[in-house]
Amino acid sequence: MSKETNQQWGGRFSEPTDAFVARFTASVDFDRRLYRQDIQGSIAHAKMLTKVGVLSDKERDDIIRGLSEIRIEIERGEFEWSVALEDVHMNIEAALTKKIGITGKKLHTGRSRNDQVATDIRLYMRDEIDLILSEISRLQQGLLDLAEQEADTIMPGFTHLQTAQPVTFGHHLLAWFEMLSRDYERFADCRKRVNVMPLGAAALAGTTYPIDRHYTAELLQFDAPAGNSLDAVSDRDFAIEFCAASSLLLMHMTRMSEELVLWTSAQFNFINLPDRFCTGSSIMPQKKNPDVPELVRGKSGRVYGHLIALLTLMKSQPLAYNKDNQEDKEPLFDAVDTVKGCLRAFGDMVPAIESRKDQMREAARRGFSTATDLADYLVRKGVAFRDAHEIVGLSVAYGIKTSKDLSDMSLDELKQFSDQIDEDVFDVLTLEGSVAARNHIGGTAPDQVRAAVARGRDLLAARGN
Amino acid sequence: MSKETNQQWGGRFSEPTDAFVARFTASVDFDRRLYRQDIQGSIAHAKMLTKVGVLSDKERDDIIRGLSEIRIEIERGEFEWSVALEDVHMNIEAALTKKIGITGKKLHTGRSRNDQVATDIRLYMRDEIDLILSEISRLQQGLLDLAEQEADTIMPGFTHLQTAQPVTFGHHLLAWFEMLSRDYERFADCRKRVNVMPLGAAALAGTTYPIDRHYTAELLQFDAPAGNSLDAVSDRDFAIEFCAASSLLLMHMTRMSEELVLWTSAQFNFINLPDRFCTGSSIMPQKKNPDVPELVRGKSGRVYGHLIALLTLMKSQPLAYNKDNQEDKEPLFDAVDTVKGCLRAFGDMVPAIESRKDQMREAARRGFSTATDLADYLVRKGVAFRDAHEIVGLSVAYGIKTSKDLSDMSLDELKQFSDQIDEDVFDVLTLEGSVAARNHIGGTAPDQVRAAVARGRDLLAARGN
Amino acid sequence: MSKETNQQWGGRFSEPTDAFVARFTASVDFDRRLYRQDIQGSIAHAKMLTKVGVLSDKERDDIIRGLSEIRIEIERGEFEWSVALEDVHMNIEAALTKKIGITGKKLHTGRSRNDQVATDIRLYMRDEIDLILSEISRLQQGLLDLAEQEADTIMPGFTHLQTAQPVTFGHHLLAWFEMLSRDYERFADCRKRVNVMPLGAAALAGTTYPIDRHYTAELLQFDAPAGNSLDAVSDRDFAIEFCAASSLLLMHMTRMSEELVLWTSAQFNFINLPDRFCTGSSIMPQKKNPDVPELVRGKSGRVYGHLIALLTLMKSQPLAYNKDNQEDKEPLFDAVDTVKGCLRAFGDMVPAIESRKDQMREAARRGFSTATDLADYLVRKGVAFRDAHEIVGLSVAYGIKTSKDLSDMSLDELKQFSDQIDEDVFDVLTLEGSVAARNHIGGTAPDQVRAAVARGRDLLAARGN
Amino acid sequence: MSKETNQQWGGRFSEPTDAFVARFTASVDFDRRLYRQDIQGSIAHAKMLTKVGVLSDKERDDIIRGLSEIRIEIERGEFEWSVALEDVHMNIEAALTKKIGITGKKLHTGRSRNDQVATDIRLYMRDEIDLILSEISRLQQGLLDLAEQEADTIMPGFTHLQTAQPVTFGHHLLAWFEMLSRDYERFADCRKRVNVMPLGAAALAGTTYPIDRHYTAELLQFDAPAGNSLDAVSDRDFAIEFCAASSLLLMHMTRMSEELVLWTSAQFNFINLPDRFCTGSSIMPQKKNPDVPELVRGKSGRVYGHLIALLTLMKSQPLAYNKDNQEDKEPLFDAVDTVKGCLRAFGDMVPAIESRKDQMREAARRGFSTATDLADYLVRKGVAFRDAHEIVGLSVAYGIKTSKDLSDMSLDELKQFSDQIDEDVFDVLTLEGSVAARNHIGGTAPDQVRAAVARGRDLLAARGN
Repeated sequence: MSKETNQQWGGRFSEPTDAFVARFTASVDFDRRLYRQDIQGSIAHAKMLTKVGVLSDKERDDIIRGLSEIRIEIERGEFEWSVALEDVHMNIEAALTKKIGITGKKLHTGRSRNDQVATDIRLYMRDEIDLILSEISRLQQGLLDLAEQEADTIMPGFTHLQTAQPVTFGHHLLAWFEMLSRDYERFADCRKRVNVMPLGAAALAGTTYPIDRHYTAELLQFDAPAGNSLDAVSDRDFAIEFCAASSLLLMHMTRMSEELVLWTSAQFNFINLPDRFCTGSSIMPQKKNPDVPELVRGKSGRVYGHLIALLTLMKSQPLAYNKDNQEDKEPLFDAVDTVKGCLRAFGDMVPAIESRKDQMREAARRGFSTATDLADYLVRKGVAFRDAHEIVGLSVAYGIKTSKDLSDMSLDELKQFSDQIDEDVFDVLTLEGSVAARNHIGGTAPDQVRAAVARGRDLLAARGN
Repeated sequence: MSKETNQQWGGRFSEPTDAFVARFTASVDFDRRLYRQDIQGSIAHAKMLTKVGVLSDKERDDIIRGLSEIRIEIERGEFEWSVALEDVHMNIEAALTKKIGITGKKLHTGRSRNDQVATDIRLYMRDEIDLILSEISRLQQGLLDLAEQEADTIMPGFTHLQTAQPVTFGHHLLAWFEMLSRDYERFADCRKRVNVMPLGAAALAGTTYPIDRHYTAELLQFDAPAGNSLDAVSDRDFAIEFCAASSLLLMHMTRMSEELVLWTSAQFNFINLPDRFCTGSSIMPQKKNPDVPELVRGKSGRVYGHLIALLTLMKSQPLAYNKDNQEDKEPLFDAVDTVKGCLRAFGDMVPAIESRKDQMREAARRGFSTATDLADYLVRKGVAFRDAHEIVGLSVAYGIKTSKDLSDMSLDELKQFSDQIDEDVFDVLTLEGSVAARNHIGGTAPDQVRAAVARGRDLLAARGN
Repeated sequence: MSKETNQQWGGRFSEPTDAFVARFTASVDFDRRLYRQDIQGSIAHAKMLTKVGVLSDKERDDIIRGLSEIRIEIERGEFEWSVALEDVHMNIEAALTKKIGITGKKLHTGRSRNDQVATDIRLYMRDEIDLILSEISRLQQGLLDLAEQEADTIMPGFTHLQTAQPVTFGHHLLAWFEMLSRDYERFADCRKRVNVMPLGAAALAGTTYPIDRHYTAELLQFDAPAGNSLDAVSDRDFAIEFCAASSLLLMHMTRMSEELVLWTSAQFNFINLPDRFCTGSSIMPQKKNPDVPELVRGKSGRVYGHLIALLTLMKSQPLAYNKDNQEDKEPLFDAVDTVKGCLRAFGDMVPAIESRKDQMREAARRGFSTATDLADYLVRKGVAFRDAHEIVGLSVAYGIKTSKDLSDMSLDELKQFSDQIDEDVFDVLTLEGSVAARNHIGGTAPDQVRAAVARGRDLLAARGN
Repeated sequence: MSKETNQQWGGRFSEPTDAFVARFTASVDFDRRLYRQDIQGSIAHAKMLTKVGVLSDKERDDIIRGLSEIRIEIERGEFEWSVALEDVHMNIEAALTKKIGITGKKLHTGRSRNDQVATDIRLYMRDEIDLILSEISRLQQGLLDLAEQEADTIMPGFTHLQTAQPVTFGHHLLAWFEMLSRDYERFADCRKRVNVMPLGAAALAGTTYPIDRHYTAELLQFDAPAGNSLDAVSDRDFAIEFCAASSLLLMHMTRMSEELVLWTSAQFNFINLPDRFCTGSSIMPQKKNPDVPELVRGKSGRVYGHLIALLTLMKSQPLAYNKDNQEDKEPLFDAVDTVKGCLRAFGDMVPAIESRKDQMREAARRGFSTATDLADYLVRKGVAFRDAHEIVGLSVAYGIKTSKDLSDMSLDELKQFSDQIDEDVFDVLTLEGSVAARNHIGGTAPDQVRAAVARGRDLLAARGN
């Protein structure tokens, strides 16, 4: 880097930055993504400086005009980014000064890159969280519609991946809906802590200019200015909290993905995913691979990784700003992109899931899935629960030996395990009877599924995104 | 494990559990910690079963009496825990049945260990979060008191661990206060998602008994019953969210610890920690080591680790409950203990920090910490910010060469860099002038510190813990 | 803690340690596990001090006798551990001094707790790694035996959990064998870096006593004394490297576990796990849950977590020893226990896996698993690979529509996709033909499985554990 | 994506891939980095196919010529990468077929993308590890030279960041050297497990073509073909092991960075870093920030994160290849770039460190750093170690009260703590005497530093890179 293109800290330095070091420490390749927020923040800052008398109206207008032009140039791909200028902030400021002269240099009055970058990134995160909230809602909408449609579809419910009890497919899909509701809440909670304004903290201690932080905060729609300047420039909690919320979301998506992969296997064969969400094999022509859920499942890794990256980054940093913090952006940006991409892919794919009702029903029918119902039946006849459990266990052992499901056994066969069993036992041994009987809030009964769908619709409606 | 002591699933099994496997899969060594919540949940469950007619009043009363006796036995250390009975739930249930006979077996009607353990752990977390919230408040109280006392104490503010600008020690302490306020909010947000009741989800699909989940939730002071049974038994989000909030808290404590360690070093020598929070050396008699902050700094590792442990645990688990989930408890319990221990240690130690005001002031005086003030002075005289910056850079370079701080230079020396500099420059080059001038919300001025302390006191008062 | 029981650093301290701090910073509850290595190291140190003339023969013999008695007391459970004495080292030293008088105090000549604890933990890790290596070999032995027995058993090979090509079950088991071979190597490589002796580094700089580190290293069977004292007391690489190797091992075990869980599901039904490795359900009497693989899968979380804990712990620590390092032990000890437990459980369970050959074969028969063979057949007839792929793709699409596997189609049906297909196609469409044809090193052919088993046996034999 | 440009799995699919899904699942944007290895592997594969008679000499030559041209086009930036063609492999194969016709399609005979990508990435990692090994050696070389130069420079040695004992700066630098030696070994050990050839595993089961894997392995300089095809296509251990080795390296670099940041602070002021490795401030003209060590310290986060990303990725994946694995590349590539960048920056910077000998010496002089020497002196006079420790503790307490270092006290003052102290005590209380006395292998004595430098030079010479 030549002395001419050189940096803003020249006076105290007796040699230029090493060329490799300049590249190694530059951030413009990734932080240019913040250009929109950088300009938005600068315009608000200029307005505030004018309000408090530091800039004239003319200066403010020149700055706003210059920045608006720069924004258009960037969006048209005409802006020339320079690594020598290190980051998005210096690139834009240099361009502004070139465009409007010395006034451009005045824009930096009463702020520092430390509070500027912290403000930019919070504005950016706020925008992205809003997009993410709306993508979650879209995916949840798809789940509600599908759940309603599949409210009566019977499938095996699993614990330990062993057939446990029959459930409805709609009920299963609503379990996913619940996970996403918590994710929505967490991102919304995170947004509260994002939406606090560092600007005015300057380098670390505040500024001697008569700034009006409340006014700037209002212009930028921040809830409040940050309460402590040292904290404001060094706080990256919101980035970590975002990655934690994202990790939980992706974790949920691995669980959904795992089930989608299982269900599309030849062994389960519970659903069909349309071809457009799958890919084939270069060597095995018969393959139709559930690439989207697999890839989403794999992408959990990078989000977990980014969470650890940021937690590690901040560990043991003394106040206030340290250069380490430049490393906050890439993990955060990639987490944002990943979350949006995965939600979009699922938002498109989930409504296209086609259930194979016969296969699901047949799987539920096998596997003694109504064994609990038999136990409950016995309890209602007066048998103690743990004894009923033992009786059913013996019936199942017999069923395994004779390859008969409980509902396939004759009354006499059943009676050898307990004489409390009567003809009416066959009502509780049907799949429909089993699911319908779990008819309380949160239960798998079709009526409960429909009620839950209705509650879900109310929830989405109340969000307004 | 003998066939006799054997488990509750006997009927279907043709051989007893392998002895090593029994030990390997047992959880009673760590989950016995949940005994209080297990009994609390069981009593509420029994009351509900009575309300809906499944148990008689007599049965309910027997159960409550039996469980209350068991609780006392446990607390007196008289209870005999058995690994053969696998977990806290079976240990207590077996003891109950031994105590009150067949009625004990009826308690398990309409529930399963899957919803039982999920309920217990949420009750436990709710209690622990409340303790943690109150410990955070206590530590924050200590910070406010100390900050008020040190509102006028001047120290160097650092960025990049280089002297940047003078700040007040009170202001620095309030940066810690801000971090803890966000931690408080995050734990409080987490508590909302903890306080939802799984009970009634049974194994995974709900139950055929006519349970009243709203009533049980009310008895246990849960905000609501969980909305989906499959989700209810498999959701461990709250554990992960707790560990994420804990990781952020510990990260903050590493930053505080790092500073405490620096400040107690011979090189900084900014503070003194009383002997009771330090330890010595077995070989170097002169040493006084800041063990508490170092250990707290180190404990961040285990909390980060637990967060990853739980995220890993849940990755790719199909619904609903899987045995993997037994692994949720140890990391969570250790995170709880660690958070409480670290907060307690800091809550005791922070009020005992003694500042060495002379050392702090002297450190701020050196290092050209008022250079920014000189630049601002020049800007107020009409120099463009970036030019002022250059002028000050040259002054500093001169100061380094001549070993003079800015305030040590004569007016003539200063004037060689800009003829805009006049006699009044020396007002802005004092430390007191510098900090007092940063007099806006969030700034380091002593008045702002006192205002922030007042705001902090209001905040704590509004919490009511 | 009373002043009397107080610590070894008394002189410089004016108040006793805070009682909570004493508990908070004590490590004896977990580091007492190192008692055997602590005594072993002390005996070697005493012998060396005698050799160089610092201790007399009498003093050495008293020390050895005293320590040997203490060891027996500990192993009999008769030793009284004191939290006031902080750690295992001080507990043993205090007991020694009580037993043999002032000579006990001389044992600490020329060493410090910093090098002492680092030595103890390396001796401990060396012992544990040797146990782990032998457990890996045992599990691998079980895999070889089972693979040989299942060398001809045909099952579907999966990619994307979709049926891809037929493989032999023996071949699949040998994939697990390969993973474990790499694990073995990594633990062995780690052992090299464990087996270096810190003793002699003293607190951080070495000692002024005329110690003979080579002699002590020889007595303790260390490969060499550590080359730099500052590094020796602060290096915890071996703990991290051990956790990294353990994480990889556990990751492998999650993959094996995942497959075991899948294969025992009703949908796959490929294998049976004997009852003694499974557990049942408290509510669903028909359940037989693959608890061991599920739990092992879940235990990956804690090992990953410990890895991150230790990496976090060491981040940004300045040299040399800091109190943070006390936090190295619990994660490491738990990783050791977890690795040994999981290996033992698998070592017992794997040889007991019973394959359901018919189910496996039938699953391979469906799913067009010989489609690649058809493509290869066409290529051998002169069709370009990518064209052959297209032809087979159309055949499969036809098969899906008509519910016929490739081998179920008539020659005429096949010929509609390519007239290159002749009667001999049916040889390559059989499962046996398909697997036998992959007859090169690493391929799935039964002959290759047997050859690989032979190579594996040679490998194990060469290890000698 | 149009049907025409469409994928290689066309036949079985009834609709084209969704456009977003195509982008979401494509990898060419990041895996094109493997072009060189992909071509290298293909050429070897073609030669092998010719050797075994599958390709003619003409076909082989056409393929080699075509691939060589493509390589040149890529390196000239003239190659047109297509997202529709998904990945680097299909892009190159499509270009080859366009260039040389139907022969291009034959190249894929006997292999699959699964073994192809696994081979490419191992070739790539082998190249990168070799570069990393040589960068480590370069940095170590710089450390040896500096250590030799600073063999006699005295500085305070710290434990708990408290002055402990005097050490030599050369000795401290050699602690860093030791860390890097272990890193070197770990990367070299990892390389052994990288250098195994998957090619021939085909999709998962091997191939029916008469391939000669030993020949291909020899051409590509692999140590051996992978022993099991299922393992070969699904093994990503080497990527994780690489990230684990990288995490340890970066952890070491955080420790070095932490010290460099401390040492350049005004409080320590032990060293100077030339301006070319530092940056300034946009607001504080006096600042000279140690950006390079700070940034390197921060970059530990991303490497730890990538390690967790890959461990998470592989958790619970059933065999063999799953789409999840596509996620292995970005973390790995970024880890490679980060490691190389950090090593290069340190390799340039370390030799330019300038020590401030006076400051270091003065810091060592204060702080009672020779207290241990006094204790050892007393022991040599016959005082028991623990008693000597107590005497010195009291002397230090007196020194703190009277602001005198031990060497500043008069003999009478010293004698009040023990009458064993004589005139000769002042020999051991000098800094030079203290360091020189630690004269055993691994000790801080200047002679030992020089001996260690000589050993280090031998080590580097033996590496040959």
